[in-house]
Amino acid sequence: MKIIIVGASGTMGKYLASAFTKDHEVITAAKQGCDISVDITSPESIEAMFKKVGSFDALISTAGPTYVGPWKKLTDKEFRQGVEGKMMGQINLVLIGQHYINPKGSFTLITGALSHDPQKNFANASAANGAVEGFVRAAAIELENGIRINAVSPTVIENSPQYFPYFPGDIPVTMQQLEFGFRKSVFGANTGQVIKPY
Amino acid sequence: MKIIIVGASGTMGKYLASAFTKDHEVITAAKQGCDISVDITSPESIEAMFKKVGSFDALISTAGPTYVGPWKKLTDKEFRQGVEGKMMGQINLVLIGQHYINPKGSFTLITGALSHDPQKNFANASAANGAVEGFVRAAAIELENGIRINAVSPTVIENSPQYFPYFPGDIPVTMQQLEFGFRKSVFGANTGQVIKPY
Repeated sequence: MKIIIVGASGTMGKYLASAFTKDHEVITAAKQGCDISVDITSPESIEAMFKKVGSFDALISTAGPTYVGPWKKLTDKEFRQGVEGKMMGQINLVLIGQHYINPKGSFTLITGALSHDPQKNFANASAANGAVEGFVRAAAIELENGIRINAVSPTVIENSPQYFPYFPGDIPVTMQQLEFGFRKSVFGANTGQVIKPY
Repeated sequence: MKIIIVGASGTMGKYLASAFTKDHEVITAAKQGCDISVDITSPESIEAMFKKVGSFDALISTAGPTYVGPWKKLTDKEFRQGVEGKMMGQINLVLIGQHYINPKGSFTLITGALSHDPQKNFANASAANGAVEGFVRAAAIELENGIRINAVSPTVIENSPQYFPYFPGDIPVTMQQLEFGFRKSVFGANTGQVIKPY
């Protein structure tokens, strides 16, 4: 299977690339440091990525920039980080990528428990996650040729200890749980699901 | 109670204004044809509205422009209708309005069942609704001074028959049910809820 991993310069993307590369052709993409350079806040850059890669079987996105910080500093300007990054960045990967993906291919996006289980300082991520989850359910009934789409929605992740204080009482999701979440989406048959790998 | 209704030139907003005006001071707002002229896609216009109105007790929004149309025509450009309108328009009403609202005041935004129950042609609304619902849950734990926030989430509405063919099998929500949904948010004590008035 030919799998594109967008956000592959981050912890999560690196782990998944390493896990899937044994059995699959993995193409890594990120702003820099990967096989392909892509800026997901630019539809033109996304289109250029797909043109370079050509047809593929699965796209995994672990790319989700959002604004993290005090509510009192949250204005339209800060909110745009999540709107352009985690939300429209990922949505555009699908809207554009659907013209390059093989029949029966799959898109797997990243969201997070914050859509339903908010934490202070993360309102931007709550909104972006909610948007992507709503989009995933809608796209699942629109995509044709057996193309599937799901989201993987972890809580805080084990190797982001800098975030632990913001998620009191949340049991960190392990990288292996996260990998299994993506496996369920990419190699399973479901569509329109928000997969909670815990 | 001093209540601002944004989107009060539309069917839903007019109905609510008429229902609440008996017992409350209602200030209607919309692009045109209301007490106050506001363009919710502009943070500056929103700020100007609040400056004119001064302090208030409740804000109701029924303003939710999104792109409705074939998935195949859906690109970043069309998607921005819902991003700027129903999503950021409503989010900015809260981010800005929190500085003008009275203690124990409330914000009530409009979403819709499409966030969890998609229909063809409405992926933009699914995403915008999901974003607003995620934001409402997050804002509820951030707002201070007893200020509350909820969303009202109807299915298709009885006096929008032009949309009935797009919502097969959905029992239309009556205007009175919708009014009760808003009443629950404005006069009740809950916060962070997505109220389904059916």
